[in-house]
Amino acid sequence: MRKTGRMRNWPFAKGHGTHNDFVIINDRHGMYDPDSADVRFLCDRHGGIGGDGVLRVVRARYVKDWDGDPDLWFMDYRNADGSIAEMCGNGVRVFARYLVEEGLAMGESLPIATRAGLRTARFVHQDQVAVEMGPVVVRDAGVKVELAGERWPALSVDVGNPHAVVEVSDLSTLDFYFAPTWFPSEAFPEGVNVEFVRSVGPGHIAMRVFERGVGETQSCGTGTVAAAAAAAQRDGTGITHWRVDVPGGTVRVDLRPDGSTLTGPAVIVARGEVFLPNQFD
Amino acid sequence: MRKTGRMRNWPFAKGHGTHNDFVIINDRHGMYDPDSADVRFLCDRHGGIGGDGVLRVVRARYVKDWDGDPDLWFMDYRNADGSIAEMCGNGVRVFARYLVEEGLAMGESLPIATRAGLRTARFVHQDQVAVEMGPVVVRDAGVKVELAGERWPALSVDVGNPHAVVEVSDLSTLDFYFAPTWFPSEAFPEGVNVEFVRSVGPGHIAMRVFERGVGETQSCGTGTVAAAAAAAQRDGTGITHWRVDVPGGTVRVDLRPDGSTLTGPAVIVARGEVFLPNQFD
Repeated sequence: MRKTGRMRNWPFAKGHGTHNDFVIINDRHGMYDPDSADVRFLCDRHGGIGGDGVLRVVRARYVKDWDGDPDLWFMDYRNADGSIAEMCGNGVRVFARYLVEEGLAMGESLPIATRAGLRTARFVHQDQVAVEMGPVVVRDAGVKVELAGERWPALSVDVGNPHAVVEVSDLSTLDFYFAPTWFPSEAFPEGVNVEFVRSVGPGHIAMRVFERGVGETQSCGTGTVAAAAAAAQRDGTGITHWRVDVPGGTVRVDLRPDGSTLTGPAVIVARGEVFLPNQFD
Repeated sequence: MRKTGRMRNWPFAKGHGTHNDFVIINDRHGMYDPDSADVRFLCDRHGGIGGDGVLRVVRARYVKDWDGDPDLWFMDYRNADGSIAEMCGNGVRVFARYLVEEGLAMGESLPIATRAGLRTARFVHQDQVAVEMGPVVVRDAGVKVELAGERWPALSVDVGNPHAVVEVSDLSTLDFYFAPTWFPSEAFPEGVNVEFVRSVGPGHIAMRVFERGVGETQSCGTGTVAAAAAAAQRDGTGITHWRVDVPGGTVRVDLRPDGSTLTGPAVIVARGEVFLPNQFD
């Protein structure tokens, strides 16, 4: 490939879990830590590769503040705007798939270091990957969510990050032209992801999600866990195994008193080298 | 790369001209003609690579109905929905850039075969590529364009495909939540691309474009030529050299009695292999 010398090239891949998609940067030796301008370029859907975030693949030994096993693979997750995020349920599943397909790891079960601690990914069958999502706390704190002039009671759900889950009778008529708001506004001082959930049948829900700072997305891993936990509390029959349909596909959520598991597809669609623009142009 | 056998892999690249972006499929030997399902996958911004269209790079000898020089490179352009399109001004520039960077062609000036005939791309300086766009015909056919309750007179411009060009005083307030319509509707029985143009200064316009069947885009090559030709007719001072600012960048349009030239940036941002899903899964 003849280049003019303006470019810095680097290995990348692109993958997604239920259409929550990521640019994966292979930095196994801790040599390239993309700054926020590079992350925004990589996630730019027209001017770069395009993705909801970047997953940097790096040995934990190169990560400052990681005091666990230095030989683990660390998932360094960045949002599309360049900011750092702790965890991403769909991201961990795609990260695990990438490690195995690149020959960087093997086995049915993979430990992965994240900013939220150690997570384990398991290869279930075909493209399905399961990941432990930790405990879920559901509270009825009297919160209401408003969208396009309509107002619903919401359950407050904590899956490491905050969620407000609303039950609706029809997902197709939701109007996300403006973002949903909530009352009292002090309930979520740092914002909240809002899930709109429709009951499909026993242990089966469909949802749409509006992520804070992003807008409507095809899927949100923690959001599916929050929605299943809220549905289980409303349902009351003790179902712990939930099918959750999101716009980008279908996942399974298993709820336990001490934790939760998210299972769904994770695929790599491309790999190659990306030509990062010279920032001093 | 270990794969499960479900995938078909193929070389690809991604590039863009003023953020009008393309997945480039390297098929120099005429072995892989993506069907419409593959094109939709390649252009899927979350589940595939993502692009406004696919540029298949193939020797003209393998293209049925091409009766010109069989050794030329043929730009086989497909829209993101899988349909075939004749020409794409930004696409030709990206196509030329790809040929040179892959070492498939060389020189300052490249002939490229398209469904609209032979086009010539010239490398001007740095990332700038110029392409001949053919003659432009501007008519005042009494057409009006309506958007969000407001109505403007439009010029009808033919650049091989149909355009309606409207002059507005403010681009930022345009509301593209619903598509623009036109009167009489018979004026464009097969639809039309609508350009909203603001005059910035002598020989300088800014525009936003709503492409038929697509919606608002970052850039439209023929649209910039149509907008410049309409502005030149309204201006009346004989300026033939226009700067056109689009949301995705800036291009230059040169107008002649017998043709037009579009000059702007064309860059390749990534290359690698894509894993096409097995269609019989």
